[in-house]
Amino acid sequence: DAAAGKDKAQACAACHGLDGLSQMPNAPHIAGQPEIYLKAQLEAFRSGARVNEMMSVVAKGLTDEDIDDLVAWYSAIEVTAKPPE
Amino acid sequence: DAAAGKDKAQACAACHGLDGLSQMPNAPHIAGQPEIYLKAQLEAFRSGARVNEMMSVVAKGLTDEDIDDLVAWYSAIEVTAKPPE
Repeated sequence: DAAAGKDKAQACAACHGLDGLSQMPNAPHIAGQPEIYLKAQLEAFRSGARVNEMMSVVAKGLTDEDIDDLVAWYSAIEVTAKPPE
Repeated sequence: DAAAGKDKAQACAACHGLDGLSQMPNAPHIAGQPEIYLKAQLEAFRSGARVNEMMSVVAKGLTDEDIDDLVAWYSAIEVTAKPPE
């Protein structure tokens, strides 16, 4: 549920932005990322299959519902990309 | 060097798009990603600190210069994000 995800994303916004555009040089944009990819990364951080100082801690506390809501929110964001000329 | 990176990105485009917008549900957008983040991920896939069926193979063959060029290209892409109303 994207609306619930938007509320939960308040906790992600410091690094990833509420709109999914990175606020930190070592944090990725997550705006509009494909659902399957985003879900797989949050689950990997939670299980330890993927390790990151910050995300390993953050993901530990996420429920399956949290993950689905956050993925719904961030994947619903429309992104455009304009390569350099 | 972004121009050299654009040439090298031909090899990435099948999954990530030349413009960095994902072409596959399990591949992330990499358009406009912060340089530090992108470089860290390519190095992690190359070293094995991060594992992915596809990227672990792709990254094995990358030189430091390849990584810098690819990062220069993809991070130079301008992205916008439009959250749902």
